[in-house]
Amino acid sequence: MMARTTIDDVAAAAGVSIKTVSRVLNDEPGVRTETRGRVREAIASLSYRPSLPARSLAGKRSNLIGLVYDNPSANYVFDVQSGAMARCRDAHLRLFIQSCNDLGGETVEEVLAMIDQTHVDGLVVTPPLSSDAALISALEERRLPFVRLAPDDTSRGGPCVIMDDEAAAHDMTEHLLDLGHRRIGFVAGHPEHPSSRLRRQGYQAALDAAGVGENQPIEQGFNDTASGYEAGRRLLSASKRPTAIFASNDDMAAGVVQAAHELGIDVPRQLSVAGFDDSQIAAIVWPALTTIRQPAYEMAFAAAGLLIDLVRDRPAPAVTELAYTLVQRGSTAEAP
Amino acid sequence: MMARTTIDDVAAAAGVSIKTVSRVLNDEPGVRTETRGRVREAIASLSYRPSLPARSLAGKRSNLIGLVYDNPSANYVFDVQSGAMARCRDAHLRLFIQSCNDLGGETVEEVLAMIDQTHVDGLVVTPPLSSDAALISALEERRLPFVRLAPDDTSRGGPCVIMDDEAAAHDMTEHLLDLGHRRIGFVAGHPEHPSSRLRRQGYQAALDAAGVGENQPIEQGFNDTASGYEAGRRLLSASKRPTAIFASNDDMAAGVVQAAHELGIDVPRQLSVAGFDDSQIAAIVWPALTTIRQPAYEMAFAAAGLLIDLVRDRPAPAVTELAYTLVQRGSTAEAP
Repeated sequence: MMARTTIDDVAAAAGVSIKTVSRVLNDEPGVRTETRGRVREAIASLSYRPSLPARSLAGKRSNLIGLVYDNPSANYVFDVQSGAMARCRDAHLRLFIQSCNDLGGETVEEVLAMIDQTHVDGLVVTPPLSSDAALISALEERRLPFVRLAPDDTSRGGPCVIMDDEAAAHDMTEHLLDLGHRRIGFVAGHPEHPSSRLRRQGYQAALDAAGVGENQPIEQGFNDTASGYEAGRRLLSASKRPTAIFASNDDMAAGVVQAAHELGIDVPRQLSVAGFDDSQIAAIVWPALTTIRQPAYEMAFAAAGLLIDLVRDRPAPAVTELAYTLVQRGSTAEAP
Repeated sequence: MMARTTIDDVAAAAGVSIKTVSRVLNDEPGVRTETRGRVREAIASLSYRPSLPARSLAGKRSNLIGLVYDNPSANYVFDVQSGAMARCRDAHLRLFIQSCNDLGGETVEEVLAMIDQTHVDGLVVTPPLSSDAALISALEERRLPFVRLAPDDTSRGGPCVIMDDEAAAHDMTEHLLDLGHRRIGFVAGHPEHPSSRLRRQGYQAALDAAGVGENQPIEQGFNDTASGYEAGRRLLSASKRPTAIFASNDDMAAGVVQAAHELGIDVPRQLSVAGFDDSQIAAIVWPALTTIRQPAYEMAFAAAGLLIDLVRDRPAPAVTELAYTLVQRGSTAEAP
């Protein structure tokens, strides 16, 4: 086994000081582009890989940031992880991913234990943990930098990355109104997710603005396909059947489509169905779902970038809002 | 901020030696059950969280193991991560997750850099990386313990956790034959995944055994829904249309169902469709897919357990095979 490459070797190969190598490693200013390139080349050709434990025990930043989630949606978790990892790779940091699924009341304890054990420099906190008051307080007490994705309240607890769920739901409802629908059912999202309330508000506001906001059929769902199917069965078995159903996420919209298929109701000719999120399944169900593309990857990419700024003592804006897109596919059409 | 709890505090509270606390932390033998319980209680009541960097720089094991993947399937990655994390939690270790997606030729370099930087004690290597000869050689050279999930060749490179893809595909094909189907199309999986070859072999062997192995329509897919849709269009537009199609994974089976819906072919009355994996989408498409449940969570759980044994110098079997299940849902029925 060869001797491990040290920062001295890199400095010697690039003909610069150790301090300059350190500046390049930490993406700090004060190094000319040409010098920076020479240092990066020396790092690559010598396969220099600074030890994160050695860094953190030397009292420096660990160059490791954490991402925590408590979310059963494989698609959302995958997108968020991928976005945060890509940003970390750009900045030459590593990402430690911690699941809090199935932990119940032990979430705060687990996150604090992870912080202590891994020495992460900061945390990206994903929903619904980003609205967990006990966790936010514990992180503030610990004085660890953190950035939250899509929290219910952006007025406290460090920088946030959000999208406007209410405006997006408003737009989707207008899309259905524009297609001539007047009886538009809604499948509400899981009561514990703050986005559920915002999406329902957007739906209601658009109907109110069009003068058809009263007595529209609304059913409670829980963000999974099974609850969407049950809600769809109830909405479609009512005497005054809606001609369109807007579900608060794609998984539930897929359940509504299942219910329609089973009852022999043609989507979209007899029933338009709209979802929210543009997760992988939106393009897999048939007909493919008209939905709101929530930029989960981009939001996590941005959140990791803000956290890196915080960790490196650079300023970060309190609220960063990313744009959504209404994606029109085969599941919505003109009212019958 | 309170002073950090040390191993001495735990030893004092439990009335045992530091060595005994260390044995309990590492799940080593030689500690009585009653003593072990007392130590665990002291660890919990004092919120003792051993620093992983301190451990690894003291020349001990880091109590951190790694999991690497290069796989675009959110469902598979999520299941594998969840299984490995659950096993690590049981053993009081932490899991470092590394994506190699979109790295192209830099995969080996990235994995080695991750090992150097994080000081992981060992690696769980998931498919298709588990069949990457360059990576396996690099890990062997590094003398780092690793366990592979579903590799093409179990004869080299440490313990493996597998399931019998060929037998499972054989069973699924027999299920279709039992339903009276004689013209059974196949959508082959991505050529770079070793399981694709095994699944196709199982399909062919079952047809051969039934005396109908010749001239069956086979189309190439690439494990995603779009390629399954294209393959389905081709199979269903042929003059001699199959009455059943077996796709090498669920994403492609979902694409076949899309093609059938679009062509007005009723699933399952005019066409049976079968998938493989039992990913989340299998129950989301309509009709829900008959498929093979691949125990991805359990395989990763087992692989992490074997790796922990290796790291702790305990013996681990070379090959561990887990059972699959044929899950019958609405997408298959008797031949028309």
